[in-house]
Amino acid sequence: MNEEIRPVSRSRSIMTELVFPTDTNHHGTMFGGTLMKYIDKISAISAMRHSGKPVVTASTDSLDFLSPIRMGEAVELEAFVTWTRRSSMEVYVVVRAENLFTGERRITVTAFSTFVAVDEQGKPTPVPSVLPETDAERKLFDSAPERHELRMKRRAQRFSSTDR
Amino acid sequence: MNEEIRPVSRSRSIMTELVFPTDTNHHGTMFGGTLMKYIDKISAISAMRHSGKPVVTASTDSLDFLSPIRMGEAVELEAFVTWTRRSSMEVYVVVRAENLFTGERRITVTAFSTFVAVDEQGKPTPVPSVLPETDAERKLFDSAPERHELRMKRRAQRFSSTDR
Amino acid sequence: MNEEIRPVSRSRSIMTELVFPTDTNHHGTMFGGTLMKYIDKISAISAMRHSGKPVVTASTDSLDFLSPIRMGEAVELEAFVTWTRRSSMEVYVVVRAENLFTGERRITVTAFSTFVAVDEQGKPTPVPSVLPETDAERKLFDSAPERHELRMKRRAQRFSSTDR
Amino acid sequence: MNEEIRPVSRSRSIMTELVFPTDTNHHGTMFGGTLMKYIDKISAISAMRHSGKPVVTASTDSLDFLSPIRMGEAVELEAFVTWTRRSSMEVYVVVRAENLFTGERRITVTAFSTFVAVDEQGKPTPVPSVLPETDAERKLFDSAPERHELRMKRRAQRFSSTDR
Amino acid sequence: MNEEIRPVSRSRSIMTELVFPTDTNHHGTMFGGTLMKYIDKISAISAMRHSGKPVVTASTDSLDFLSPIRMGEAVELEAFVTWTRRSSMEVYVVVRAENLFTGERRITVTAFSTFVAVDEQGKPTPVPSVLPETDAERKLFDSAPERHELRMKRRAQRFSSTDR
Amino acid sequence: MNEEIRPVSRSRSIMTELVFPTDTNHHGTMFGGTLMKYIDKISAISAMRHSGKPVVTASTDSLDFLSPIRMGEAVELEAFVTWTRRSSMEVYVVVRAENLFTGERRITVTAFSTFVAVDEQGKPTPVPSVLPETDAERKLFDSAPERHELRMKRRAQRFSSTDR
Repeated sequence: MNEEIRPVSRSRSIMTELVFPTDTNHHGTMFGGTLMKYIDKISAISAMRHSGKPVVTASTDSLDFLSPIRMGEAVELEAFVTWTRRSSMEVYVVVRAENLFTGERRITVTAFSTFVAVDEQGKPTPVPSVLPETDAERKLFDSAPERHELRMKRRAQRFSSTDR
Repeated sequence: MNEEIRPVSRSRSIMTELVFPTDTNHHGTMFGGTLMKYIDKISAISAMRHSGKPVVTASTDSLDFLSPIRMGEAVELEAFVTWTRRSSMEVYVVVRAENLFTGERRITVTAFSTFVAVDEQGKPTPVPSVLPETDAERKLFDSAPERHELRMKRRAQRFSSTDR
Repeated sequence: MNEEIRPVSRSRSIMTELVFPTDTNHHGTMFGGTLMKYIDKISAISAMRHSGKPVVTASTDSLDFLSPIRMGEAVELEAFVTWTRRSSMEVYVVVRAENLFTGERRITVTAFSTFVAVDEQGKPTPVPSVLPETDAERKLFDSAPERHELRMKRRAQRFSSTDR
Repeated sequence: MNEEIRPVSRSRSIMTELVFPTDTNHHGTMFGGTLMKYIDKISAISAMRHSGKPVVTASTDSLDFLSPIRMGEAVELEAFVTWTRRSSMEVYVVVRAENLFTGERRITVTAFSTFVAVDEQGKPTPVPSVLPETDAERKLFDSAPERHELRMKRRAQRFSSTDR
Repeated sequence: MNEEIRPVSRSRSIMTELVFPTDTNHHGTMFGGTLMKYIDKISAISAMRHSGKPVVTASTDSLDFLSPIRMGEAVELEAFVTWTRRSSMEVYVVVRAENLFTGERRITVTAFSTFVAVDEQGKPTPVPSVLPETDAERKLFDSAPERHELRMKRRAQRFSSTDR
Repeated sequence: MNEEIRPVSRSRSIMTELVFPTDTNHHGTMFGGTLMKYIDKISAISAMRHSGKPVVTASTDSLDFLSPIRMGEAVELEAFVTWTRRSSMEVYVVVRAENLFTGERRITVTAFSTFVAVDEQGKPTPVPSVLPETDAERKLFDSAPERHELRMKRRAQRFSSTDR
């Protein structure tokens, strides 16, 4: 059992990217795929910063793309670990799109993913606990067990129904 | 109003990829991000095949990575449109990982995404209906309105709570 | 000697891709290079699926690009092993370009490549034989020895004439 | 003439990346090229955030790679505009390498680049002034004219000597 | 009709690349696909240099990979236009693999491709003739019509037999 | 001590690339970052060709982008080792941009970088000396010690002043 505890701030990770033609459809509106790749990347970095171990993606909660992102805009992703449980970590990401010419910024997606820390044989291995320090962090920490429950239920359901 | 109706088979789309070192952590286990990018890409192709129009990603339902994928394995994604509603389409994807040396295959993720067809001004535009032809397609078609309800509820909840 | 025999269907592999600006010239017409990379990739996957071994590209027969492919179109590649000889496999690929807006599809390239299965030291290693099951598969299987002869002749000619 | 003035904080931009095998030599030590690409990318984003205009890279000052970066480490880049002059902006970047397993971080490179804001014809166009707010920002602001002088001298020398 | 004539040397183009893990199989031996992409890219640059026009790939002759290329080696490609006919150009490429540690170099592939110059509507447009100046260039120039004949024959055969 | 001496010509390395939309801002003018990546790549190949050893980037001198490069142009980079000192090599790169339609070429950047050869433990290891053979090579060889001095001074200054 890993007795260490680390503040949320240790895992806070930021990534800024430009939207390029290869990420968009014919009219310059971004597909979700590149953004999902960014979300996973910055979340994985955040989970590795918290745990100091290699990690694998275990799940991603549902994502709603609240507003289209356009070619030439920037996207900024901010991620941090909100909660842990043995070898797994919940990571929260906020994605903000930014019109570089007006400076206008808007939230485009918020996402929860879970990652599992693994040892050299690829087996799950314990991670430090996380210490929320701000109100926002505490709110996410307190509501995490409920999200965890929902994921477990969802997963159980899937295992039983996916029979092809 | 678009009166046309198209069989599910028209939108069936397949993509096969190898897992490369840049997609994996230090021990050769795949991160989820590249896979999410593939899921979005083949889903978008499927939605464009159904609608004959440019599309944007509207949402992705939760994803569970049921088993780790390793470097050197192949992944095969199969996508098709299961249901439509005005300008939006639900797309289902099954991802199978495959050990190329033993031929063993296993389902790694199943995913539902929704896409919206857009016109030249980027405004939502109606899409043809979809005609399920097999039992599996009908089952997914029949259960789609319920998934749609859940997404609407989830989205409403998010809009009201995301106030930062 | 590897006595096993595997049906052509085991190696059938499909890949679907969108054409992006980085793959095209100034007027949006695709260069052949990205397509050749896709052809080699799906052929290699097909050869690994048949043999269950790592493979290297040994040769590619001549390619004719029968019609230009445009930005925003999709390309679908279908590959399967048509014939084997000790450690080498002949793979056939059909490339279809697809206008996503009209649904119109047309064959753009058909290609034959040969791959060699290798062991851990990189030495050629025997592969299972292939069993054609459909008329089209049998036709390709029956005409393969002749194509093999031509390649051997061509190769011999090249070795003797390439003296720089 | 653009009379506006904007605080340094407006242009502060952060980017975090993992080091992958394709960025390193045979022994897992990073080449400088990918890092230079990241430095230019985050600097350009910073300059666009400050000016609200498209920009082009005009120059990069000398870079010293103070310590090798290894595969599997993370790099974090932080950039902001330190000084402006008509249509040009000086951007400062600090690059920190981070061992994700120990949490140890070290400065690897610091860099100054200059960018020029351009209008729709690609002609230089005025940018807002910048307001330093912290001691570190003021120090960089105050020493900028001297660096500008050196660049002008260097450039003049180059133009006269590069005659091939 | 374009009466201009340009020496072969004008279109001579060179490209040097390192072989990376993403280009190789599990044992570090290069797949042919990335190399084919490089061949097409440097050939297209060569054809644009000769013609001063956008080009599209029309065909690639058969390729034999004479020796495996390994991760960490360099590949150097040299291309030039050997012959023209109205709007089409034949381009010759020699690929040399190089062990950077011993300096040993060996020819790995030689390839002929044909490109067509196109105008703004994507229609074929005449190109300047080419003037061979060395013995090697003249030999390739003189043998080009024969290769052209073979391609025409091959193409005719394909059109008639590809009926699926 | 490595007594070997190698001519400059042995390390001469050339790379030609096209400028793509992903390398440019909204108006089709190239960012410096991709070019810096190319400069480092061809310089590293040149340093490996000279030394026959793995190398790491130690420094890059200041770069001035003398004229904007536009989408659709080609860039040609030419690199060679100009001078060595124990385990380090100075590499010179000339970058020429080329309008493929007019054939007009212009120098866009010239750059000096230094690379260090490393052994299997990543420790600096001696490299062969270099023999300049042309006037231009001798001029660069003779002026190298002065540039080396400047770099040492600059580096010392930086180490003492970078205290954040």
